[in-house]
Parts: sequence; C-alpha cells; structure tokens
Amino acid sequence: MGKDAEDIWSDDVAQLLRVSEGFILSGVDPTGTPGYAHGKKQGAKDLATGAAELDEYQDRLFARSRVDATHSSVLLVLQAMDTAGKGGIIRHVVGSVDPQGVKITAFKKPTPTELKHDFLWRIEKALPEAGQIGVFDRSQYEDVLVAKVRELAPPEEIERRYGAINDFEQELTENGTHVLKVMLHISYEEQRARLMERLDRPDKHWKFNPGDVDERSLWPHYMSAYQTVFERTSTDHAPWYVVPADHKWYARLAVQTLLLRTFAAVDPHWPVADYDIATERARLAAT
Amino acid sequence: MGKDAEDIWSDDVAQLLRVSEGFILSGVDPTGTPGYAHGKKQGAKDLATGAAELDEYQDRLFARSRVDATHSSVLLVLQAMDTAGKGGIIRHVVGSVDPQGVKITAFKKPTPTELKHDFLWRIEKALPEAGQIGVFDRSQYEDVLVAKVRELAPPEEIERRYGAINDFEQELTENGTHVLKVMLHISYEEQRARLMERLDRPDKHWKFNPGDVDERSLWPHYMSAYQTVFERTSTDHAPWYVVPADHKWYARLAVQTLLLRTFAAVDPHWPVADYDIATERARLAAT
Repeated sequence: MGKDAEDIWSDDVAQLLRVSEGFILSGVDPTGTPGYAHGKKQGAKDLATGAAELDEYQDRLFARSRVDATHSSVLLVLQAMDTAGKGGIIRHVVGSVDPQGVKITAFKKPTPTELKHDFLWRIEKALPEAGQIGVFDRSQYEDVLVAKVRELAPPEEIERRYGAINDFEQELTENGTHVLKVMLHISYEEQRARLMERLDRPDKHWKFNPGDVDERSLWPHYMSAYQTVFERTSTDHAPWYVVPADHKWYARLAVQTLLLRTFAAVDPHWPVADYDIATERARLAAT
Repeated sequence: MGKDAEDIWSDDVAQLLRVSEGFILSGVDPTGTPGYAHGKKQGAKDLATGAAELDEYQDRLFARSRVDATHSSVLLVLQAMDTAGKGGIIRHVVGSVDPQGVKITAFKKPTPTELKHDFLWRIEKALPEAGQIGVFDRSQYEDVLVAKVRELAPPEEIERRYGAINDFEQELTENGTHVLKVMLHISYEEQRARLMERLDRPDKHWKFNPGDVDERSLWPHYMSAYQTVFERTSTDHAPWYVVPADHKWYARLAVQTLLLRTFAAVDPHWPVADYDIATERARLAAT
C-alpha cells in the first residue's frame, strides 16, 4: 500500500511542502504544483486511486484499534484563508473514507461558554476516537491567528498559546494520535476570483458575506500571523505543511498523499482472531 | 429533483415498505425486492444516480438552514439484527453525501454514566444539527428490543418507553427534524451465511464475536420484540419502514429512495442573497 500514490510524484512531496528551518511563507507560490509533473486530468485519476487506498487504510486502523490502542487515530488540522478550499478537501479527500470512520469538527467563533474556558477546552472535546480520522476545519490555530490579527487577546496570552499548543500536540502524539497540520495557501487574487464566483452563482450567494470583502484588507496581517505560527509551532512531532491551493486539484491530491504517508507510517494490520475459527464454524453451522 | 429516483420503481416503494395497521413482520420476505423489477446491476446504476441527487439535497438543506430553521434536519434511524447491513447503508448511501453534512452516532451498550440517566438522554445529545442528515446506528429502540429480550429493565419500564419514544419523536418532528425509521430485515439463514463469511475472511475476523452465535438462539424473541415495536411506535409523524435486506443492493437502493422522498417533501431551496449583489461585486473588484 502507498506505493502507487508515491509513484505519481516526481519528488518527495512531503519534504517539498513541509515547513522547516528558514521557511518563508511569502516565498511559496500559491499557483505552483510542487513535485507533480502532470496536469489536472491525471490529477483527478490519481486522486481516485488514492481514494480507495485511503479508505482501506482507515478500515484497517479502525479494526486495529479494537485490539490495540497504540497508533490509534489520525488528526488532520486544516487552516486557510476563506475560500482556500478546506470544504473541498473534506468532501473530495476525506469523503472517500467510510463516514463512520471520520469525525469532522468545524470551529467557528467561540461561543460564550467556550470563551469561559481555556482555548484548548473545545479542541479537546473534538478529538477523534480510536480508529478514526479526525478533521479540524479551523482549529486551535484560530486562537493565534484571528485572535492575534484582531487583537482578541492580549499579546502575552497569544505568546503563551504557542507553547500551550506545542505541549498539547506533543501529548496527543504520545497518546497515539498522528497530527497532520496543513495550511492551504491561496493567493490574494485567487480569493477575489472565488468570492466573485460566489456573487455570480445563485446557488453560492448564501456563502457570501459582505464582511468577507472587508476582511481582505487584513490579508498582510494574516500572512504575517501565519508566518509566526509556522516558526513557533512546526515541530518534529507535528510539523506544518503548506500546500499551494490556487489549483484545487493539486491541493486535494497533495493532502491525500500526506494522509496516505501518515497511514503508511502507521501501517495498521488486520487483527488476528482471538477465538478458534474451526470451533466457531462448527458452532455456527449447528444453528 | 427526485423524479429520476421515482421512475425506477414499478410501484410506490414507500407505501410498500411502510408499516401500517395490521402489519406482520413474519409476513415480510427478507429475500424480496418489492417495487423493483430490475436486478443487482441496474440497482447499482440507479444507486449512483440517486447518490448525486441526495448530495445536492443535503447541500440545499444545509444552505437553507442558515436562513430558516424550519425543516432543518433529517434523522435516519437504523435498526437491524447483526450483519443485516447497517454499516453498508451508511457507507454506500449516506457516504455519497458531503461528510460535513452528516452526523453518525453508533449506540453501543450503555455506559455506566448513560445508565444513570433516562434512556433518551444519550439520544438527545446525538441529534443532528440544522442542515444535517443524522444517522443513528442502533437507537432509542435498543431500549425496547435488547432491553426487553434480555430483561434489562422491568416490564413496566419497557411499557413506559414506547410512549416516551412516541412523545420524543413527535417533539422532534414538530421542531423540524424529519424522522425516517428503517428496520433492515434479514433472514435467519442469511445471518448465518454472513457470519460464516466473517470466519472465512481474515480481514473480517475482527468483526466476529463468539457471542454472535449464542445470540442467534434468541432470534424468535427479537422478532417478537420488533413486532411489538412496530405496533406501538409506527406513528403518522414517524412511521417505520421494513426493508428486505437479504439482497444488500436492494436494501441500499430502497433506503436511498426513502431518504430522497423525505427530502423531496422538504424540497429545500437555495437562500436568496440578503445583500446587494452589484454593490458587493464593485466593492470586491476594488480590492
């Protein structure tokens, strides 16, 4: 497993997209397709191949988790500017997995109850169960992104949160949750085009909010906040991956491959029967 | 919408499968394919057609729920004997919908905490949010099925529960949740064959439990408990549908059609923009 998905890449895509020492967000081209030499059409085919693989991996992970809680879940953290395609990743990548094996949580503006607790309180409640793929549509990182840009918390609290997030993710990892953090990176121009499409299509009007236009004036501040996030929270146990996302097909294929890699590292096997098969066959036949 | 899905049936399948006055479970043939004159191959094609329809319906329901909370969710309650194919329905029918629009809850043996509360406590916590399709993999009905057969509660408590369930479902319906209750009906022989398959396939061994064989001796008691459930809880606001399930392809197609009918009755429309489109286009273009 995982071999087919790897062969489609001309280079190690995980390595290419991973945030490491000296990473500069503004140096990433959102229109790029790093590591992939083919186009959209082949990309769709490769996505379909990977879909079946991902589905089987999750099945195995679930089965395995019934007998062994080590390496028990995968958590995909999705962060991005509006319209970057988080929803499309969930639909087209995560959607290929048995829905019983998936736990998706969209984090909105915190409720009054949530605000009474530490920022990680609502995050902890949303973690995947053993055998599941958890997906965070926005996450704990909103609390150091929008919270920083809009000054929703004092600077020293924002400061504290980077460390709290790292500790939290380390603990998750030690408890068998594989954390995959992805930022979908679109360009300022592409966001304009996608918002315009929402205005052009009656079936998309409900997705548009006039506030989305105002928010665009804060773009440079968000990019700067992301840069800090990468510097402070891309760790060995939970590194960040920045995925160019102006081409939706590329972003989907890349995230699927990152997920497949995560599973390949876990490589969950079907559990072995803890009963005598011949005995049970005979008992069953007698009913 | 819904037209294509209806045309594939030779008769009104909802009417054929609905539990009404005088229904007798033992009179239903689990190997039947009522209302459908074609075979497995055509069934798979019709399922694919319906999948796209169901996906769009849920999208519309979600969009609509952002502006209008009436008719806001659909709840599919799945009950069945082991191996009847609940998981397959979730994977192959519900799985065609955007996973963000689905909330699946599998009800297992109640935990000590759950047992401290009324039997509906854990059910209420699992209801779908506005715009979602909720799926109950087992449900409140376990508390009048296994609880009755295994005498886990005194008879007067079981008695009380039928009424409590009816009241609960009526309230749900009045609050805009469309409740679709489905029993997948397999034969005693088919269950044996499916359990045998689990023993034959190493990737299915983990799904087999020696207790499954013992449980088969209670089959008549379960059928009797189901019969009582149908008599006491198939109401106008939340009727039961009994779906012959020895043919998996038929059961999937039938449940999909029942879901499509439910949505067709709601017929959610895309919300109309509450902002001036031309103004927003100009503002956006200026960014």
